Amino acid sequence: MHKTAIGIIGASGYSGVEATHILAAHEKVELRLVTSDRWQGEAVSRRLGTMGAVGQLKYAPLDKSAELARECEVVLLATPAESSLQLVPGLLAAGVRVIDLSGSFRLRNLASYPAFYNFTHSAPELLEQAAYGLPELFRERIPGAKLVANPGCYATACALSVAPLLRAGLLDEGSLIFDAASGTTGAGRKGSEDLSFSEVDEDFRAYRVLRHQHTPEIAQTLAGVAGRTVPLTFTAHLLPLKRGILVTAYGRLRPGATAAEARAALEQAYASCPFLTVEASPDAVNLKGVVGTNRCTVAVAADTTGYDPGRVVVTAAIDNLVKGAAGQAVQNLNLMMGWEETLGLSTLRGFNP
Amino acid sequence: MHKTAIGIIGASGYSGVEATHILAAHEKVELRLVTSDRWQGEAVSRRLGTMGAVGQLKYAPLDKSAELARECEVVLLATPAESSLQLVPGLLAAGVRVIDLSGSFRLRNLASYPAFYNFTHSAPELLEQAAYGLPELFRERIPGAKLVANPGCYATACALSVAPLLRAGLLDEGSLIFDAASGTTGAGRKGSEDLSFSEVDEDFRAYRVLRHQHTPEIAQTLAGVAGRTVPLTFTAHLLPLKRGILVTAYGRLRPGATAAEARAALEQAYASCPFLTVEASPDAVNLKGVVGTNRCTVAVAADTTGYDPGRVVVTAAIDNLVKGAAGQAVQNLNLMMGWEETLGLSTLRGFNP
Amino acid sequence: MHKTAIGIIGASGYSGVEATHILAAHEKVELRLVTSDRWQGEAVSRRLGTMGAVGQLKYAPLDKSAELARECEVVLLATPAESSLQLVPGLLAAGVRVIDLSGSFRLRNLASYPAFYNFTHSAPELLEQAAYGLPELFRERIPGAKLVANPGCYATACALSVAPLLRAGLLDEGSLIFDAASGTTGAGRKGSEDLSFSEVDEDFRAYRVLRHQHTPEIAQTLAGVAGRTVPLTFTAHLLPLKRGILVTAYGRLRPGATAAEARAALEQAYASCPFLTVEASPDAVNLKGVVGTNRCTVAVAADTTGYDPGRVVVTAAIDNLVKGAAGQAVQNLNLMMGWEETLGLSTLRGFNP
Amino acid sequence: MHKTAIGIIGASGYSGVEATHILAAHEKVELRLVTSDRWQGEAVSRRLGTMGAVGQLKYAPLDKSAELARECEVVLLATPAESSLQLVPGLLAAGVRVIDLSGSFRLRNLASYPAFYNFTHSAPELLEQAAYGLPELFRERIPGAKLVANPGCYATACALSVAPLLRAGLLDEGSLIFDAASGTTGAGRKGSEDLSFSEVDEDFRAYRVLRHQHTPEIAQTLAGVAGRTVPLTFTAHLLPLKRGILVTAYGRLRPGATAAEARAALEQAYASCPFLTVEASPDAVNLKGVVGTNRCTVAVAADTTGYDPGRVVVTAAIDNLVKGAAGQAVQNLNLMMGWEETLGLSTLRGFNP
Repeated sequence: MHKTAIGIIGASGYSGVEATHILAAHEKVELRLVTSDRWQGEAVSRRLGTMGAVGQLKYAPLDKSAELARECEVVLLATPAESSLQLVPGLLAAGVRVIDLSGSFRLRNLASYPAFYNFTHSAPELLEQAAYGLPELFRERIPGAKLVANPGCYATACALSVAPLLRAGLLDEGSLIFDAASGTTGAGRKGSEDLSFSEVDEDFRAYRVLRHQHTPEIAQTLAGVAGRTVPLTFTAHLLPLKRGILVTAYGRLRPGATAAEARAALEQAYASCPFLTVEASPDAVNLKGVVGTNRCTVAVAADTTGYDPGRVVVTAAIDNLVKGAAGQAVQNLNLMMGWEETLGLSTLRGFNP
Repeated sequence: MHKTAIGIIGASGYSGVEATHILAAHEKVELRLVTSDRWQGEAVSRRLGTMGAVGQLKYAPLDKSAELARECEVVLLATPAESSLQLVPGLLAAGVRVIDLSGSFRLRNLASYPAFYNFTHSAPELLEQAAYGLPELFRERIPGAKLVANPGCYATACALSVAPLLRAGLLDEGSLIFDAASGTTGAGRKGSEDLSFSEVDEDFRAYRVLRHQHTPEIAQTLAGVAGRTVPLTFTAHLLPLKRGILVTAYGRLRPGATAAEARAALEQAYASCPFLTVEASPDAVNLKGVVGTNRCTVAVAADTTGYDPGRVVVTAAIDNLVKGAAGQAVQNLNLMMGWEETLGLSTLRGFNP
Repeated sequence: MHKTAIGIIGASGYSGVEATHILAAHEKVELRLVTSDRWQGEAVSRRLGTMGAVGQLKYAPLDKSAELARECEVVLLATPAESSLQLVPGLLAAGVRVIDLSGSFRLRNLASYPAFYNFTHSAPELLEQAAYGLPELFRERIPGAKLVANPGCYATACALSVAPLLRAGLLDEGSLIFDAASGTTGAGRKGSEDLSFSEVDEDFRAYRVLRHQHTPEIAQTLAGVAGRTVPLTFTAHLLPLKRGILVTAYGRLRPGATAAEARAALEQAYASCPFLTVEASPDAVNLKGVVGTNRCTVAVAADTTGYDPGRVVVTAAIDNLVKGAAGQAVQNLNLMMGWEETLGLSTLRGFNP
Repeated sequence: MHKTAIGIIGASGYSGVEATHILAAHEKVELRLVTSDRWQGEAVSRRLGTMGAVGQLKYAPLDKSAELARECEVVLLATPAESSLQLVPGLLAAGVRVIDLSGSFRLRNLASYPAFYNFTHSAPELLEQAAYGLPELFRERIPGAKLVANPGCYATACALSVAPLLRAGLLDEGSLIFDAASGTTGAGRKGSEDLSFSEVDEDFRAYRVLRHQHTPEIAQTLAGVAGRTVPLTFTAHLLPLKRGILVTAYGRLRPGATAAEARAALEQAYASCPFLTVEASPDAVNLKGVVGTNRCTVAVAADTTGYDPGRVVVTAAIDNLVKGAAGQAVQNLNLMMGWEETLGLSTLRGFNP
């Protein structure tokens, strides 16, 4: 069987490692290129324990990424936003299809880049071309795309939690609140005192409150779904664990709308989505049910205490490195190539003991 | 110096242990009684490593609590709500002053007990007598009280986060959201599969969504502060750590009100409160800064992203076993007895390495 | 392709769950039966998120295990020792091949059962038939076996650490010390105060010191390898993490033997073992390199400090639920059935982020 | 009451913070100086939440340490070994007494410094003057000392585990094994990828195997106790927790010696030691019983399995930052000054919930 040649640029970061694990077992893929300065010259098997052919592959230096990537049909960029911005134009010009895991091509509003990413976008003409790769909400644009902007981890979980309710017109026009918490791998592989075990363990705190860079991305997605601007507040917290994002989203039901309708909206929206599961109660949505997999679990409840009539709460959980990064990238790859959506992803097992 | 005889009923639970640690070093207290079936007959030093006289004290059986407590001037009840309900009338009748750490005497609305605590209140005449022991908000009623209802851990953190803003009239009349997360000691000392290490570690989830029993307690406090009913939603989450509660509270500024006014309201309200610290940013409020101490740290920020004009976020952190239970009980004891508020509490050190 | 019908008895324990995950993706296996009282009647997909056919399988009640197992060619028993002891004779009589994950059929010395397992063995005639399923050391007996006694998790790691050195005659005749530490899943799925998160997190301790039930199992294996009785001490510790066993083994080199020879002995012994990796230094052997996989990493060093001439230290790491239980069971299944040893195991990926 | 002026050099490291917490509550001490570049100019209260006078103290720059320390009667050096080596001669010359928490003055054998600490000792004449500050074993030299070398954390736990057995002549002359594990604060406050939460959590491994710098320190102590060279192997492991060291020590009883004698030796040796507790079984020695305190718990057992006759196992636990560093430094301060040994230390409470 013909296998498609794929490369991973930035393969030693946590998302790059995850992508390597997944693609190593993907039946239609030949993983031909992995680049990393950190692990340059080493075999994948020494670093990841991968058995078989991929285990023999050696990490190439990052600065050869552009050149070596030309032998691939598709590359995944698991690089910082600035690096992606530099690499993408050349890759596309060389006919290589790109799935970019950074934030570089996610936002259509150019002004958001200096405001939230601290750079001026150098390839604005590509923003229109880029398909925002959140298949459960915007499946149609991905198959033909040359460039997929893989969504942010928080943005994925936030959008999936409430989009069906917005689409179904069940929420009032007030602002939505997304209170989210992530494991430490969301911050990437690095050595900083703030992320040291002695500082993070046994602690919990919010960060970048009211200034997180995923805010415009969530807003853009919700506007796309609702057909109107949706005001929102997003808060990120750092959990003392490695993987997973839990979002607790707060909205208000439009007068007359019911909790049953909200649940039905989730179920209908996700009935044909292989990675989405609607749980019976927000209490049943947890990290251990999704970590290690490409799944997203969601559930909704409405106020019964009488203390906040009309309040609706939706919880959603994903693995930030899988559905929030590498897994979703492979899901996008499958759709881009016309393959079955779950290829290479259906056998991922949870880490839950 | 005369020392006041104090007893702790239910001394082997996590709050009881914490109270024992604190009172063992309290200069005006003679800890005369600790009761526990679990540790009956053992010396405190064997269980807690306590040096000095308190270390020699032995745990008495729980069913002797009522009888032995009569030798104390004040007792702390670190017992389940139903046990407190049974013990309190007799203790008061015997002239013993009581600080009850359970929920039994916190709520004035009798209907809340069957709805949220699953029992019908058997001593409704005492509810009016009970002083709600949250000194930073309701200091005046504590000194003369015979019965103090020590606030719930979540309720303490939620109330302290926004009360000054409500009192200052800075918030609009929409509902408030309290998104909170607690360590596992909040669930008490017990062996259940759900609380086993293998299930809790590396996980995070919400629980009792839109039906948590601290909801009416928070509502009662906010109404007391605001002079009106304040609609609210409260969500609890379970963190994979032992101690600490972080609340992220969401409100909306009244038109014309500013972030600076909100911060000033916090600072003025807590200027004379020795355990309250206003941090410069919500990012600076974290568990490691308060765990092990009776402190509560708070901070406020308003939206600057433009995605939710008027949004205000307040974070607050406490140690659920100290400011959320035993420490606050000792603070109440100090006020009840006319002692300095910080006695026995000012030397508590954080566990932060 | 013909698929072999397999059953898992005791499928809701942590080893049973792991076996389900692995067999669900095994190309030569049809997982036909999973039994569990806890999850009786539920679909595997609801509990484990398994996609595909296995996800539709429902848990049958435990007391139907014996009856339903007759439709399987092989069953894995992930049950307590006493349950295995009751089930095995009937299964074998019905022509079902058995891989038993409990300790029931591991020891040839009958007296060890009352001494270390608190029961008298009721089927001593089967002990001789049982093949001890540690393929790296005793591969030859597994293919024809009707009954495989799957080794204990600690016993696996201890034996694999030093067996090659013993076989090569590199160690003196003094006693060996195995200082080992395990994650909490080694204690099984249960709710006890001792295993609650609040008690286990941030703690570390030894348990069952000088009386652990894996001691005779390790001794039996080492005697089999060395051709003589090998005195040994084994100590188990409980780690605040979910999965993984690390063993630090201490021996003494026979006069004249060198560290280089010790390392060569490991490398030669494991050269053809697909799951065994010899690392360059004991410092490089860690849990994160093996957890989630069927791998065992080992490394050896000899004293260079001058403070203990002749001392040799070997470290070994495995995932207690995979190479220490379900993964090794599948490895044994593969060998029993004449399949490639790594089937269903080569694609297991590490949980290391 | 006259208070003794004390300074802490290097007050923002984990040991320095711990010393600050302890000395802030020490009734005979006026903490007059804390130096730290990291926190220079900030008040102690902002960093540590300390109430009272010490909270108002501000961190002075490190390079003023030598000058400012002259106003103190005693200084604690919580600095790297090289910094201590530079500071100590001048401080002593200025009449300031010094308790050095680094390894700079612990070893009498000059050759050990280049071999294990990578520097040549620049003040060998001071090594003889330095009192090794392990009061339970060498109490007599501390009172008059001008310079106390505060023991290493691992070395403290290892020495306290077996010293009474050696002194009592209960062990044979074979080598001893110390298998130890420490929390991450033992590595100090720093940002390195190896110590990041994402790398350390859920992991466990040995490090610096057969080359750890505490080896000669343990050997020196044991030789001092036994009156002969005691061969030994020491292994350190990194635990996924913040504080605490557990040592599992392995020796062999001299023919005729019994477990009861071993236990009696521990009890007699430590009967008058306020911080030492002999537990009934090695299983009862754990981190949660000592973390936060200056305690050391120990217990001994001998082989009853028959698999290793004569084997004796001793476990010992301490908090690496308290009994292993700052607490022991204050214990030494108390003895140096002729104060009661437990001053400022008896009220330290455990962090165990």
